[in-house]
Amino acid sequence: MKLDSMLPQLGEWLRGTGPESDIVISTRIRLARNLADMPFTNRAAGIQKAEVESKLRETIAKLNWHSPLHYIGMQDLNALNRQFLVERQLISREMANVLEGPRGVAFDDTESVSLMVNEEDQLRMQVMRSGFALDQAWETIDRIDDMIEQKVQYAFHDQFGYLTACPTNVGTGMRASVMLHLPGLGLTKQIEKAFKAMQKINLVVRGLYGEGSRASGDFFQISNQMTLGKSEPEALNDIRSLIHDTLKYERFARSTLLRENKQALQDRVARALGTLQSATMMTSEETMELLSAVRLGVHMHLIEDLTAPLINELFLQTQPAHLQKIIGEALDGEARNAARARYLRQRLREISPQAN
Amino acid sequence: MKLDSMLPQLGEWLRGTGPESDIVISTRIRLARNLADMPFTNRAAGIQKAEVESKLRETIAKLNWHSPLHYIGMQDLNALNRQFLVERQLISREMANVLEGPRGVAFDDTESVSLMVNEEDQLRMQVMRSGFALDQAWETIDRIDDMIEQKVQYAFHDQFGYLTACPTNVGTGMRASVMLHLPGLGLTKQIEKAFKAMQKINLVVRGLYGEGSRASGDFFQISNQMTLGKSEPEALNDIRSLIHDTLKYERFARSTLLRENKQALQDRVARALGTLQSATMMTSEETMELLSAVRLGVHMHLIEDLTAPLINELFLQTQPAHLQKIIGEALDGEARNAARARYLRQRLREISPQAN
Repeated sequence: MKLDSMLPQLGEWLRGTGPESDIVISTRIRLARNLADMPFTNRAAGIQKAEVESKLRETIAKLNWHSPLHYIGMQDLNALNRQFLVERQLISREMANVLEGPRGVAFDDTESVSLMVNEEDQLRMQVMRSGFALDQAWETIDRIDDMIEQKVQYAFHDQFGYLTACPTNVGTGMRASVMLHLPGLGLTKQIEKAFKAMQKINLVVRGLYGEGSRASGDFFQISNQMTLGKSEPEALNDIRSLIHDTLKYERFARSTLLRENKQALQDRVARALGTLQSATMMTSEETMELLSAVRLGVHMHLIEDLTAPLINELFLQTQPAHLQKIIGEALDGEARNAARARYLRQRLREISPQAN
Repeated sequence: MKLDSMLPQLGEWLRGTGPESDIVISTRIRLARNLADMPFTNRAAGIQKAEVESKLRETIAKLNWHSPLHYIGMQDLNALNRQFLVERQLISREMANVLEGPRGVAFDDTESVSLMVNEEDQLRMQVMRSGFALDQAWETIDRIDDMIEQKVQYAFHDQFGYLTACPTNVGTGMRASVMLHLPGLGLTKQIEKAFKAMQKINLVVRGLYGEGSRASGDFFQISNQMTLGKSEPEALNDIRSLIHDTLKYERFARSTLLRENKQALQDRVARALGTLQSATMMTSEETMELLSAVRLGVHMHLIEDLTAPLINELFLQTQPAHLQKIIGEALDGEARNAARARYLRQRLREISPQAN
């Protein structure tokens, strides 16, 4: 599979559609699984890892899934291409840069299913959906999990549940994450309050690219913490109910802003677009901040001519590996900032904010 | 004289030409004079002020000056029109808002000469030149001073020189001011050092609109402090030599920036223009900051299509009174910020930064 053919397209998580997509970017559920009778990845010898990889790879290849799952070994990808898959959220940063030995990932053309082999756990399955779609994501991943379990024996303990390399995943091995865009709560200074409510019921807040990544542009990932003592439907219910509350608060904040601060809001949005259209140097981080303001403007009808999918596309294409693939050469940080700014100027040339 | 006819034109001080006009906006010299045998304005009764006004007004009317000097009494102007003249630097803020009684100003069509009657002193004469032109300004104001002195008797003391309402002006009554644009020293953090050198030789640094006005956008007025114990040519020499040094430092800073930080500089200039072209709310102060960056860009050939006179025009037309005259109605602060942003967007619509 040529990764370059993926360049012009958006994966499932950035399609910009689905339920509540004015606030919810995407929903993701992953399951951590390991094979019975084989040591965990971090304890396995090279030959054992190879055996695990080969077994899971074959199992995936024979899976009767409705769309083909392409398997790529990490050894076949250079650093740029591994980073490319990280930016598309198809593999973890650990799989790209830290882990060693035989390992790989299988994913489908729509990039809504990704199956990592020999990550922290031997099998990390992930299903993504655009918008707020916990049920659909759960249904899909549960089906894949069942199909694989018919072919292999998972490490499972009657009392603890699924066994995993890290004790924080033991039990269901499930992590459900909902990616939210909360500029309304950000602008009205209520974001900390919202996070406290989440932490109270053991939800975790992270940046866009998961653990250790900084939250910027008011984009946040909300995930369940608990994998032990709660069934999957219970854990999903907790997160669903909290996200529903958060959506309500964010919408209330947005309508308050529109009612009480429309001029300032419009100015903020117009300036963000103007800066994207004019700067000659631009970091990824600032791009995210500015696209966040523009995204809010689109959903609040303060900008015409611009759509959520285009914003998502700009967000993805200005990530370091995507940008270098578009330009066709390796670029250092400074040169990337110049190339990113040039790309944004070109793509946004024709866009003008709502006339007033 | 209808003030509205002045609206589309730029006064002498904003023509954007003249020697060293990449750094020196304008040169201004004023002389403070009072009539012998009449109390100073702040000690005079209404009837005495009227007598002074009538005498000076007649003298000015009969002055054989090469271009007509129009006299306007402050009582004939509303607050907006007085503010309009302040913004054009034809009258002081005191004359517009603080002083009472019969008072007025005469100025010519090119706005290079202004003669205020019953300001702090009974006669405040002012000559303006675009660019760095101390000699020409001095020559002109000296000639006007002589012509008036042929008609009236000034309050003059053999030992002290010209007597003035405030002791800080006694002697020559002369204040020479050079308005500088020093973004290079600002960006390279050398501005404080430059100011210390000026203060050492008793020069005063002020913002664009004189005493009490904040310096913004790296625009500064440098004036002599001493009016006693130094002849006019000596005082002018002091300031000339200091300004020559400052020009040298500013040019050095600009060329260093261009050599070592061209990308960052270009980005700064492009963003400033982008913000002026896109914001929907804009204060006077931010306008000045952004036009300052754009002005630097023009003089460093980082922006095409834009000229110094256009920047000066935008600067003047976005001042509160000018803006309200253009819009044709009184606007409060918030509405002015919206109108200012709209005006800037319209005027700059066609401008694009240098392609790269």
